[in-house]
Amino acid sequence: GCIRAGINMFLDHYRPALMEALEKGLVREDEIDSVLRGTIRMMLKLGLLDEGSGNPYAAIGIEDTVRPWTRPEARELARRATVESVVLMKNDGLLPLRSDSLKSIAVIGPRADQVIPDWYAGTPPYAVTVLDGIRNAVGEEVEILYAASNKADSAVIAAGLSDAAVVCVGNHPLSYGLGWGRNHVASDGREDVDRQAISLEQEDLVKLVRAANPNTVLVLVSSFPYAIPWSKEHIPAILHVSQSSQELGNGVADILFGKESPAGRLVQTWTESIDQLPPILDYNIRNGRTYMYDPHEPLFPFGHGLAYTNFAYRDLQPAKQTISRGEVVDISLTVENTGSMDSDEVVQLYVRYPDSKIHRPRKVLKGFRRIHIPAGESRKVTIPLDAEELCHWDPEKHAFMLEKGPVNLEIGASSKDIRLRGSLRAE
Amino acid sequence: GCIRAGINMFLDHYRPALMEALEKGLVREDEIDSVLRGTIRMMLKLGLLDEGSGNPYAAIGIEDTVRPWTRPEARELARRATVESVVLMKNDGLLPLRSDSLKSIAVIGPRADQVIPDWYAGTPPYAVTVLDGIRNAVGEEVEILYAASNKADSAVIAAGLSDAAVVCVGNHPLSYGLGWGRNHVASDGREDVDRQAISLEQEDLVKLVRAANPNTVLVLVSSFPYAIPWSKEHIPAILHVSQSSQELGNGVADILFGKESPAGRLVQTWTESIDQLPPILDYNIRNGRTYMYDPHEPLFPFGHGLAYTNFAYRDLQPAKQTISRGEVVDISLTVENTGSMDSDEVVQLYVRYPDSKIHRPRKVLKGFRRIHIPAGESRKVTIPLDAEELCHWDPEKHAFMLEKGPVNLEIGASSKDIRLRGSLRAE
Repeated sequence: GCIRAGINMFLDHYRPALMEALEKGLVREDEIDSVLRGTIRMMLKLGLLDEGSGNPYAAIGIEDTVRPWTRPEARELARRATVESVVLMKNDGLLPLRSDSLKSIAVIGPRADQVIPDWYAGTPPYAVTVLDGIRNAVGEEVEILYAASNKADSAVIAAGLSDAAVVCVGNHPLSYGLGWGRNHVASDGREDVDRQAISLEQEDLVKLVRAANPNTVLVLVSSFPYAIPWSKEHIPAILHVSQSSQELGNGVADILFGKESPAGRLVQTWTESIDQLPPILDYNIRNGRTYMYDPHEPLFPFGHGLAYTNFAYRDLQPAKQTISRGEVVDISLTVENTGSMDSDEVVQLYVRYPDSKIHRPRKVLKGFRRIHIPAGESRKVTIPLDAEELCHWDPEKHAFMLEKGPVNLEIGASSKDIRLRGSLRAE
Repeated sequence: GCIRAGINMFLDHYRPALMEALEKGLVREDEIDSVLRGTIRMMLKLGLLDEGSGNPYAAIGIEDTVRPWTRPEARELARRATVESVVLMKNDGLLPLRSDSLKSIAVIGPRADQVIPDWYAGTPPYAVTVLDGIRNAVGEEVEILYAASNKADSAVIAAGLSDAAVVCVGNHPLSYGLGWGRNHVASDGREDVDRQAISLEQEDLVKLVRAANPNTVLVLVSSFPYAIPWSKEHIPAILHVSQSSQELGNGVADILFGKESPAGRLVQTWTESIDQLPPILDYNIRNGRTYMYDPHEPLFPFGHGLAYTNFAYRDLQPAKQTISRGEVVDISLTVENTGSMDSDEVVQLYVRYPDSKIHRPRKVLKGFRRIHIPAGESRKVTIPLDAEELCHWDPEKHAFMLEKGPVNLEIGASSKDIRLRGSLRAE
């Protein structure tokens, strides 16, 4: 059945069942050949079947013995991807740290000197931990005190002796090497391991470090959100970064010390408490799941992320006042970097349907642009809005339909930080 | 040096150093013989050196082939010790559960079907988990829904389908079998593993169960306190019990279903947040450690523990109004069980030194009595107060001294629940 529906990839042990289906005549060989065309086409496109000069990868390991992922441009790309992914969740002005005025920095926590491959991640060819990255950034003049934990008060002592403290906590994506389905830390999770908690016991380490040094930066290295209301209230600066980049440490240090302004955005709602989440088996997204349907005030909203500068938004200008089936309407606006540092900004377009007769999301992201704006300069940003994106599925007509009526436009720096409002009329 | 000071027990590898000390004449054989007298005396007292009929243990495994720890009286003793150790930390009236009016009960959590030996514990000859104990208590008529975790919403579903839910969470004393010094769960700890947290990610499971069923009992099976302010505020009934009794489940069930009234008491202060604890390397107890010196309002105070009945305290009567060196003054009072259930009560005597010129504890426990009082009856309780117990160490005189002045007496059901006050004069 699924082969006839076009499925051409199966995991694990599919051969015996497929051979049996062939023998019983449930599927024909030419049907299998037919769905495999897609697989073969992709292999051809990637040059996997070419041996000749047309394949740029064919020389690797033969004539070209430098592994491509060790080249400077690959390192630079990994570092850039990491820098761009860092989310500045909170900043009371502690960041960026000034390495020229710091004499010492404490680097603390179980994730400070680790780069852990995430579930299904490749093996990185090398790894720069946050501790390494900070060392690379500050040079010899700044003393670094490292403490993996607070064993024998080591973290508290290091934080108390330093001008600033960076605490790195977060999940272990591989559950410390335990086998399939096994896990001990309630807030950890991965394939076949549902997270049993979204709070973080390691936040107690953050509390202790903060009590020892008010200049504490929390670096949350994690695969997923945590409920960290204490840190949101009490820690002056919080960064989030995902696991497993080989350039993790350099990327984080580029942000910590202001070599680059952060502009990453949260791609999930960070919830205040686990009991605000709907049951995991409730697959109806409308029952409170995601920023689109969650009635609770989030701890950190979807799309949230700060920079080391400020942006002013103005002149929201839809290219038309109406939108009909088949049309794409450009939504334009101007964003000005009013601060003193060059930075990317992620401009987000949300829509609402104020008069809809059907159950709609509170708001829904319909487009975004990440754009670099030098300090003091302005840029025009255009986000195309396709009428298809505004359609809903009509189960009676069994088709996507464009509901007539007003469509509110909200332009913001996050789903909660709306800067400009306008509207269109769907016709 | 330590041998000359009387030390006669050494751990691990002491022989080479001792032989070297002997050879070098740093210690003499007769000095070793002398300190070993204490060891030999204890072995004699225990009958370890007797082979004859005078040793009641000599027949074990020879004539008497029933292992003593499997006898009914040993089981009963373990069950009694467990029952007496259970601390009822909170009860809004949900406990005791009425097994005759419950049709179903959800038993939930990672500690619900486990008895874990504690660090340095012996191997129990058998083990009754909380799940087993509840099964034994309720019989066939009550349906039991068990969920070890909330994987695929299993805990929430079980709680939602049941008349009441019992959630069992707590530490793993052996860090899930990891080796010496190794640990992954921040709030776990043992020898050579300082706890990195006192909050509990498993409390998120408690939140989910509570949201699914208001009749939720939290059973905290743990070797040490946790900071659980959410549970204190929102869970109607909370029990604490230590790890590793083979009768864990029967003991907990005896309390849950009111076969016995709880009367166990907390032997530590349960702190609201980790940053209220002094640094672990600060060995000066006066710097905020324990109920004696901690200025913070505790989450649960030292000596705290509720029963299924109420007690009225009256007629505090010191045998004398003064106390001098060498005296023991009996402190007497009457306690009445004013409720409808027989129960033990733990009557605690604290003292304060209101006019002391030296740094004294805020209050300090000087005696307690655990006494069984049938419903409606009264008992006279006498706690002897030895003048030696009121002395302080005078570093100038290099001696314990009794400071003259008033000594306030506080009689309570915990260090915070003081029922009667009086005073003595130290002379």
